[in-house]
Amino acid sequence: MISSTLRPYVDSLLVNRDMKQEFRSIGLIGKHGGSGIKDTMLSLSDFLLSRGLKVLLEDTTAKYLDGHSLQTADMDEIGQNCDLAIAVGGDGTLLHTADSLSEYQVALLGVNMGRLGFLTDISPFVMFEAIGDILDGNYIEEKRTMLEVEVGAKIFRAFNDVVIHKWNISRMIEYETYVNGQFVNIQRSDGFIISTPTGSTAYNLSCGGPLVHPNMNATILVPICPHSLSNRPIVVDGDSEIKVVVCGHTTYRDIQVTCDGLKTTQPEDGTVVINKHRNPVRLIHPTDHDHFNTLRVKLGWSESPV
Amino acid sequence: MISSTLRPYVDSLLVNRDMKQEFRSIGLIGKHGGSGIKDTMLSLSDFLLSRGLKVLLEDTTAKYLDGHSLQTADMDEIGQNCDLAIAVGGDGTLLHTADSLSEYQVALLGVNMGRLGFLTDISPFVMFEAIGDILDGNYIEEKRTMLEVEVGAKIFRAFNDVVIHKWNISRMIEYETYVNGQFVNIQRSDGFIISTPTGSTAYNLSCGGPLVHPNMNATILVPICPHSLSNRPIVVDGDSEIKVVVCGHTTYRDIQVTCDGLKTTQPEDGTVVINKHRNPVRLIHPTDHDHFNTLRVKLGWSESPV
Amino acid sequence: MISSTLRPYVDSLLVNRDMKQEFRSIGLIGKHGGSGIKDTMLSLSDFLLSRGLKVLLEDTTAKYLDGHSLQTADMDEIGQNCDLAIAVGGDGTLLHTADSLSEYQVALLGVNMGRLGFLTDISPFVMFEAIGDILDGNYIEEKRTMLEVEVGAKIFRAFNDVVIHKWNISRMIEYETYVNGQFVNIQRSDGFIISTPTGSTAYNLSCGGPLVHPNMNATILVPICPHSLSNRPIVVDGDSEIKVVVCGHTTYRDIQVTCDGLKTTQPEDGTVVINKHRNPVRLIHPTDHDHFNTLRVKLGWSESPV
Amino acid sequence: MISSTLRPYVDSLLVNRDMKQEFRSIGLIGKHGGSGIKDTMLSLSDFLLSRGLKVLLEDTTAKYLDGHSLQTADMDEIGQNCDLAIAVGGDGTLLHTADSLSEYQVALLGVNMGRLGFLTDISPFVMFEAIGDILDGNYIEEKRTMLEVEVGAKIFRAFNDVVIHKWNISRMIEYETYVNGQFVNIQRSDGFIISTPTGSTAYNLSCGGPLVHPNMNATILVPICPHSLSNRPIVVDGDSEIKVVVCGHTTYRDIQVTCDGLKTTQPEDGTVVINKHRNPVRLIHPTDHDHFNTLRVKLGWSESPV
Repeated sequence: MISSTLRPYVDSLLVNRDMKQEFRSIGLIGKHGGSGIKDTMLSLSDFLLSRGLKVLLEDTTAKYLDGHSLQTADMDEIGQNCDLAIAVGGDGTLLHTADSLSEYQVALLGVNMGRLGFLTDISPFVMFEAIGDILDGNYIEEKRTMLEVEVGAKIFRAFNDVVIHKWNISRMIEYETYVNGQFVNIQRSDGFIISTPTGSTAYNLSCGGPLVHPNMNATILVPICPHSLSNRPIVVDGDSEIKVVVCGHTTYRDIQVTCDGLKTTQPEDGTVVINKHRNPVRLIHPTDHDHFNTLRVKLGWSESPV
Repeated sequence: MISSTLRPYVDSLLVNRDMKQEFRSIGLIGKHGGSGIKDTMLSLSDFLLSRGLKVLLEDTTAKYLDGHSLQTADMDEIGQNCDLAIAVGGDGTLLHTADSLSEYQVALLGVNMGRLGFLTDISPFVMFEAIGDILDGNYIEEKRTMLEVEVGAKIFRAFNDVVIHKWNISRMIEYETYVNGQFVNIQRSDGFIISTPTGSTAYNLSCGGPLVHPNMNATILVPICPHSLSNRPIVVDGDSEIKVVVCGHTTYRDIQVTCDGLKTTQPEDGTVVINKHRNPVRLIHPTDHDHFNTLRVKLGWSESPV
Repeated sequence: MISSTLRPYVDSLLVNRDMKQEFRSIGLIGKHGGSGIKDTMLSLSDFLLSRGLKVLLEDTTAKYLDGHSLQTADMDEIGQNCDLAIAVGGDGTLLHTADSLSEYQVALLGVNMGRLGFLTDISPFVMFEAIGDILDGNYIEEKRTMLEVEVGAKIFRAFNDVVIHKWNISRMIEYETYVNGQFVNIQRSDGFIISTPTGSTAYNLSCGGPLVHPNMNATILVPICPHSLSNRPIVVDGDSEIKVVVCGHTTYRDIQVTCDGLKTTQPEDGTVVINKHRNPVRLIHPTDHDHFNTLRVKLGWSESPV
Repeated sequence: MISSTLRPYVDSLLVNRDMKQEFRSIGLIGKHGGSGIKDTMLSLSDFLLSRGLKVLLEDTTAKYLDGHSLQTADMDEIGQNCDLAIAVGGDGTLLHTADSLSEYQVALLGVNMGRLGFLTDISPFVMFEAIGDILDGNYIEEKRTMLEVEVGAKIFRAFNDVVIHKWNISRMIEYETYVNGQFVNIQRSDGFIISTPTGSTAYNLSCGGPLVHPNMNATILVPICPHSLSNRPIVVDGDSEIKVVVCGHTTYRDIQVTCDGLKTTQPEDGTVVINKHRNPVRLIHPTDHDHFNTLRVKLGWSESPV
């Protein structure tokens, strides 16, 4: 199914072939509050059990699956005991799973509930076949970068993006950016996005940032609504340390730091430091995974007028 | 002069420290037709000779330096005999030098004639001090990607960009793009830019592409004036093979392929294949080199309204 | 069919109601070279004759309609004798018709051959009903601006846009712009678009210009691929005189002026002067005409990710 | 000082020449809380009194001018009694003045405190000469559009822009837009800007909207960070009624409406209706006023790389 010219993918397959991991213990995580996932998750767990695999159901998910007879576990137990975690829901469910399992080397797989996601590319309608293939060893494994964010003494992670945005003020915020200690610029804007390639289709896209192929080791810096004609996003090496420091009239009370869209905190020293997380996210795909197709289908990318 | 947090630069310095190259034989290349370079080049060659170095003057440059007594050589001889080539002129002179020496592992250094260039960051006013420092082993070496372009049986190189543009027609061209054999999209536009990070400040910038830090292993794909609301540049891994194939009503006669702004050719099979050149460009900078400063000074990057 | 809040349209209807024009003599213009138009045009002329109207077939179109028995006329005769001209083809056919009839106050109507056009919004599948309605006096008349372009002693017209673009050179062109004699700026770019609101969905769109509602009296100035971070399109009053003068290293030989995509000329004095043409284009639409729908359907305007 | 080709400006001068207004009673409004304005305002009022004019000092401003002996008045009294109001401060002071005097036909003049503003183009260093000239009848009068905003039963005005933005939620808002009752589109974004031409250099600029010459009768519609590749600003006739209605999961509690950057209200029916205010803003300029120069100086508009 993969053409002989699909070199990076084939390379990754070849590299992995001998060391292709056999998934024996599977963690199951569902969209919290999503009543629609019950049938899908129960038939998925039946399928996995029928293959003789060990299945651990995430305990919060379990609340929405009354009547199940699965062994439950919290995220850390899943991290410690599973070699594959399957997130059933939308991209948000997978973002949450990646965050919770960041300390563990668990591979991740996403089943979308109805519509193709950027991260969850297995349709429930073909999931037995697709997941069966993957369990047989026929899969692509992508290593994607995740960010680690220091806000004062607190540490957060972001698989899509870190957003520093103005908070409870109407005027713009002002901040300096440093890359590896080197001064980049002073910007005045509504906020600032530090995005992984994975996040390039998320808020980065809304703010004019470029699409970046998710297999890249890169970080994208994009201001939100800068009051300037001369701004332009910049892509830097994924191993760079990004430091953002509020300046001018802006204080830490004027900003809030959000990771993957979840409200987090305000930095008391006015400084946010972002590095690549030491563990990449191991994202598993069927062998016919096609990122460009997802861009075309979900974004209408480069459609010409009819 | 380098802060302790300048990690990538310092890393490269540390890595290179023991193996820091001693430059003993210097090739000198000047802007062709640039009468203003004569004094600079002669005083530069005097300076190099006074340090006991061997100096080879590129033979075409020599035509503009009547009265000199330097040994001349063609580009291949410079490539074979020199360990450092100094280009004096503008960025165009350095682009040409990088192209001509692509088969050799010669380090490159650029002296600008008056104004800061993106590639030529040594001012003639401080060149003795700056080049002296470099010859003493105090320098930063960047490895930058260059592209290799196959157009039919012909091979070209591009340090900035490959531009596929419409030729002698008023309507747009139509083409398919493949990355590592994987279909990306069909676009209708005035043309298409495949740019290195180095070229991200060149034509890519004019066409809405992102800035990409030149130390990245990346390739930027940007259509020129696409007749679409939904286009967006994409950044892909620098090791990707990019294939562009004309389609629809467009034939190879409707397009022309240009590398680094120099007219080249038309692909008789309607196909252009672009890969990373096997040799990176070894670009030498003073230790106070600051790419972000160049962006701010030359582009007015992210200036706020006054 | 028109809601009571559709004020401008209703206003135009009210204004026109008493003076609603009865169309008695119809000029028919078809896409030149378009073999597919024959059946449509013959059935359309039969329809018009059956209503007792006078029909004049444009003589160049007539060449493609062998066997017809219609009276033919050149464009000037159509302009002098008809009160409605129906263009059958695509937007290009209507652009050409508007240009040829610019000296006459003939109303224009567009029938598209298959796909909705921005200007030709009557489908051949419903044209008898739609045109019948219009002939009964149920129509919307838009007055749209057209540009008059002075290039030396020559005068051209443009319904979409005037494009000043580089010609046979690889470097950018440089030019000064004046609006009503007032200096605007110096730009370096691949070219410059001076567009009507009608043209805002044409080349203007490809070059990042805004959509402008076609009922506006406005002119849009958009550079093509400017090598600047700080450029931004500007919209000025449609009654403004726009003057573009090449400067710097650019001479008139380096540029070409194109009106509505047709190659025209080079200005020997390096100057192009653009004013609103004294006659607006009278564009006739069915009463259910919906410009925003056309934008959505043809451009996928503001579609969200699925 | 005005070239013979400056047609619109000269036209406005000619039209106004005979009816050029003699300003006899002047309202003075200063930046609230701006201690630095005291000297400028006192010397300005001395200047005006020395010309035998009546001067009314806005009563809130008066609090910052201890020791003055001027007659004070509230904004309505200024509106009823003055024929010219001079705002001393920044663009914000003039925005506030225009809003407060919107019911009166008072001409407005802006003196900036130090830096050129978009609206306040008289420097305090030349204000006696510049204002003297204006009082002598040598001035340009611009009529600029202002917006009237209905949010439920409340009415607001906006000289720059109406911003509908998400409020206390992290997800995007969803809304339908109607122009003159005609459906435009459904958008999902962080917010939506409805801007006058005057506001085109304000928040509109940050969100990618076009520059629009302030003498135009136009309204600009620009989404804030839409999650779509295919969005594009649109410019519509200034006489259009714009209606924005929240839809989908968005309720009125999720949005807030802000006029000229000041916090206002939430629409209980989820609907915001925007029309042109019946009174234009009469903005007075010196005869050498040059809007394009302001764009270049303040925005660095269309600067090329150096």
